Amino acid sequence: MIDPKDTECKNLVLSIKLMAKHLDGMADTFEIAEIKKMLNYILKAENIFVMGAGRSGLVGKAFAMRLMHLGFSVYVVGETTTPAVKKEDVVIGISGSGETRSIVDLGKIAKEIGSTLIAVTSNKDSTIVDISDNVVLIPGRIKDNGGGYLERHMRGDYRNLTPLGTSFEISSLVFFDAMIAELISIMGVSEDDLKSRHTTLE
Amino acid sequence: MIDPKDTECKNLVLSIKLMAKHLDGMADTFEIAEIKKMLNYILKAENIFVMGAGRSGLVGKAFAMRLMHLGFSVYVVGETTTPAVKKEDVVIGISGSGETRSIVDLGKIAKEIGSTLIAVTSNKDSTIVDISDNVVLIPGRIKDNGGGYLERHMRGDYRNLTPLGTSFEISSLVFFDAMIAELISIMGVSEDDLKSRHTTLE
Amino acid sequence: MIDPKDTECKNLVLSIKLMAKHLDGMADTFEIAEIKKMLNYILKAENIFVMGAGRSGLVGKAFAMRLMHLGFSVYVVGETTTPAVKKEDVVIGISGSGETRSIVDLGKIAKEIGSTLIAVTSNKDSTIVDISDNVVLIPGRIKDNGGGYLERHMRGDYRNLTPLGTSFEISSLVFFDAMIAELISIMGVSEDDLKSRHTTLE
Amino acid sequence: MIDPKDTECKNLVLSIKLMAKHLDGMADTFEIAEIKKMLNYILKAENIFVMGAGRSGLVGKAFAMRLMHLGFSVYVVGETTTPAVKKEDVVIGISGSGETRSIVDLGKIAKEIGSTLIAVTSNKDSTIVDISDNVVLIPGRIKDNGGGYLERHMRGDYRNLTPLGTSFEISSLVFFDAMIAELISIMGVSEDDLKSRHTTLE
Repeated sequence: MIDPKDTECKNLVLSIKLMAKHLDGMADTFEIAEIKKMLNYILKAENIFVMGAGRSGLVGKAFAMRLMHLGFSVYVVGETTTPAVKKEDVVIGISGSGETRSIVDLGKIAKEIGSTLIAVTSNKDSTIVDISDNVVLIPGRIKDNGGGYLERHMRGDYRNLTPLGTSFEISSLVFFDAMIAELISIMGVSEDDLKSRHTTLE
Repeated sequence: MIDPKDTECKNLVLSIKLMAKHLDGMADTFEIAEIKKMLNYILKAENIFVMGAGRSGLVGKAFAMRLMHLGFSVYVVGETTTPAVKKEDVVIGISGSGETRSIVDLGKIAKEIGSTLIAVTSNKDSTIVDISDNVVLIPGRIKDNGGGYLERHMRGDYRNLTPLGTSFEISSLVFFDAMIAELISIMGVSEDDLKSRHTTLE
Repeated sequence: MIDPKDTECKNLVLSIKLMAKHLDGMADTFEIAEIKKMLNYILKAENIFVMGAGRSGLVGKAFAMRLMHLGFSVYVVGETTTPAVKKEDVVIGISGSGETRSIVDLGKIAKEIGSTLIAVTSNKDSTIVDISDNVVLIPGRIKDNGGGYLERHMRGDYRNLTPLGTSFEISSLVFFDAMIAELISIMGVSEDDLKSRHTTLE
Repeated sequence: MIDPKDTECKNLVLSIKLMAKHLDGMADTFEIAEIKKMLNYILKAENIFVMGAGRSGLVGKAFAMRLMHLGFSVYVVGETTTPAVKKEDVVIGISGSGETRSIVDLGKIAKEIGSTLIAVTSNKDSTIVDISDNVVLIPGRIKDNGGGYLERHMRGDYRNLTPLGTSFEISSLVFFDAMIAELISIMGVSEDDLKSRHTTLE
């Protein structure tokens, strides 16, 4: 254990710089046809359901909150007043590995019901991709099977700079917030419209 | 309303590029003495409590989860089994404006108990800063009183690219994950140590 | 510490018998005019918001879930996609003492907005009662200032049989579920209607 | 739809009276050997994990909160800082039908890890019972295969008085709170000990 007084916080600075570069590169990697398809599904959905486990679930909640601010009928899977999914609904599943058991299981149920399933994942060879109608690939690190900026540019220690799903989680949050920016433009609304739907009881 | 087929997703790409630049700049703005103080408080805390409202609360949960992976005794304010705060504990309050009512109220209670209060905020002239023992300033946009990269480089429409607290929320998530990278280095642990504490029931 | 092998579980049996008697007595204490008023507010609400702290919050969530099963537009204060409260909405605040700070504060905000506030509490001389449009009194034990069946019939040790807010929390859950039974009858729906709205993703 | 002004709230009163009788009868049905086994597992557990879906999950949270007030190291499955389950830990699964998919799946994982699994259910012929080390049967109504007081005494309309899992959920909450009363007696603690651990930040 190092005394925190003796650190110069190089790892802190380095991990932020790396994430910045990773995100800058990510903006150029998207398959725009898939993004347009996702925008279209969201705009036409009767209801939107968002799901993810662990930190991916938190990212999903952050997206769901902004969709609510935009006026969409949106629910987080697992919250108290989330109703039954129907055929006309869109379900967005977030999983870096694309293999998170609960998310894959719920994705299958969504498909059995006949609803639209959108996967946001880092792993194009995954079960969630196989069963989804629409896939957005996020260049985050996958647990055993890397890809993306960090892997190509770092030598070994990147694991400790963005441990576990960190890179995917930050990248997917930034992607979802960029989707919000795009939706604001498409829908012709402004920040004030969002503000008017922001919770007054917090 | 534009048909999503006719968009080229320029706002999506632009908002990601802007966030990447904002984060790259952020890494150079930290007051390292305050960061070291925060690292020291975390390492010596009996228990750590994290609190935030709305999307800042989600960012706090993402940080709390990683602190748990590192082996800290950490709780999210408002969750089921979160116990009473005591003098020996550290409370981390997250609020872009530094004026979120519930967070400021809880911060005051934490100070009355005698525990250590750490503020993570964009607003150095705020109530949360006034009552905190340790302050980390995040260069995010504040609602009525801007600052940071986006404001200096955009002309008006940045509001729609990173609406409401978006810039603060992403920036503080990246900052907290960078603190985890620094703690991993200070504590001499590895990604495998984190993995061993990752929930097995998800 | 007694060895659990040596207990006959008398306190377990006694506390259940006491709660059963308490509930049986409770059914006769309601002011039916206030209940009808509450039914009317719920049936006419644009949206219903439910709030409570700690275990009272859990009771509120259980009620909100059943209101969703009945087809109401209902939200839990503090959950991800809960929108802004408006004048046409009804806010239900649950607090045994009627003085829980966060609930009283949010109740005041709800009244400033012009929405209808309903209090479910054990304490008729409380702040939440003062500011509410409609009050349902639950004969549970209040922390320092008792009432209800248990107090009248036990001699001292009742505190340990239903510690803290236990009596209020169970009683209010049973009351809310009885409201659901009444709504089912008034609305002419059946259990199958509820089942059709029950989440499919769990 | 009946006008609420024209109701006499008979269903409200009837459903409370029925639940009171159901609970009074329940107190005599427990297999005390299984209850003692559960008390013993709880008292010796390194950590306790509580899990349930929907309203059963809320009941589990209410129990977990009181166990925390008693000083146990207790976690709710799915909350932010819940760590990995280990062999020395006890997992409590709550499911009226005993077949809730997510709970059964997680129960199997808990058994693979080697931890102790306790089932609280209404259905003795269920998967959760088959895989558990300890089973507490709650005389609640099961969806297609009834039992308990309400079924024996009502003629058909009981379904609408306690729809879906209502009877199980109330009964299991009352059972868990009775376990708390028993633990208070066994551990020789008092309400004041609980109060000292009650959250100060709410």
